[in-house]
Amino acid sequence: MPRVDLAAPMATLVAELKRLPGVGAKSAQRLAFHLLGVDRAKAEGLARAILSMRERIRLCRRCKNIADGDLCSICSDPRRDHGLVCVLEQPNNIMLVERTRSYNGVYHILHGALAPSRNIYPKDLMIKSLLERMKEVPLREVILATSPTTEGQATAAYLKGTLQPLDVKITRIALGIPIGTNLEFVDEATMSESIAGRREL
Amino acid sequence: MPRVDLAAPMATLVAELKRLPGVGAKSAQRLAFHLLGVDRAKAEGLARAILSMRERIRLCRRCKNIADGDLCSICSDPRRDHGLVCVLEQPNNIMLVERTRSYNGVYHILHGALAPSRNIYPKDLMIKSLLERMKEVPLREVILATSPTTEGQATAAYLKGTLQPLDVKITRIALGIPIGTNLEFVDEATMSESIAGRREL
Repeated sequence: MPRVDLAAPMATLVAELKRLPGVGAKSAQRLAFHLLGVDRAKAEGLARAILSMRERIRLCRRCKNIADGDLCSICSDPRRDHGLVCVLEQPNNIMLVERTRSYNGVYHILHGALAPSRNIYPKDLMIKSLLERMKEVPLREVILATSPTTEGQATAAYLKGTLQPLDVKITRIALGIPIGTNLEFVDEATMSESIAGRREL
Repeated sequence: MPRVDLAAPMATLVAELKRLPGVGAKSAQRLAFHLLGVDRAKAEGLARAILSMRERIRLCRRCKNIADGDLCSICSDPRRDHGLVCVLEQPNNIMLVERTRSYNGVYHILHGALAPSRNIYPKDLMIKSLLERMKEVPLREVILATSPTTEGQATAAYLKGTLQPLDVKITRIALGIPIGTNLEFVDEATMSESIAGRREL
């Protein structure tokens, strides 16, 4: 039985789509056929959006968030509290904090977390720019909001050591049991953090 | 609390990605940030694959499958049985049939199914080209393999009426209970088809 191949430009597109996170062989094919079926302008709109994003996006001079100008929309907003900085691993983490509608400070994006096993050392993160920024604008508080993963925890510990000499309040986001979770499904490490971090009511 | 916006080129990309089937707001954002984080060449590779696919893909002159030449890879394969045609709604349905490794005929792609409620009539499907093709190359058998949905069933019924005068064997794929399905989860319409289509053992 001869094997059938997709027409070459289609096969190339399927291969490119399969590289996207969470896109397997089947959905890559489904997306490719979708892009074949829609108006040509729509398919080209997506392609152009990718190209334009890669061309125009740069990092905010101050906080290393994505920006299309010198400063990002947050750093250039005078209504934000510029003495309070939340340190995050990735630019998209900002959306999560913003959706809480309970934070009015600014950010600093590390673009990663320490991972010596993958050759990611302090010099590979946006840490130097955090220190420089603190020389320019005095900060009241730095909230370390890296993930409570091995890498994020190591990063927070490293930052604590680095920032401590600088006379700034350093805090860590609370680690514990997620809202809505039954204790039955909580692991020991989380339970342990949760007890250690208990607060008086 | 001021609302934060993504940098414009990023927001545009997220909006374009959200138009893809099965891509919601969250995964559109995840994909956009992935495309920001990978090597620029990789992101541009996807964009170029979309553009190139829309530029180069056309429909096979004979069967209306996607092709990058005059005939698709199946219609130009002399090892296939060109007297046996499987009629399908969409080009991607071909992959499903091919994966069975039990079919060696050729195909005809309708590019849709009859749906008067959505203004899709016989003239909007690749039916005329099926009739013309049958005048050129005599067929032994036409397998109607449209989906057993309302629209696919209507299309099969219409094709049966249209092809009957042409002295060709017309068959319909078997409709019944899927392999591996417990009868407990089978609907009455499927059960009814399954009984009507029972075969002697």
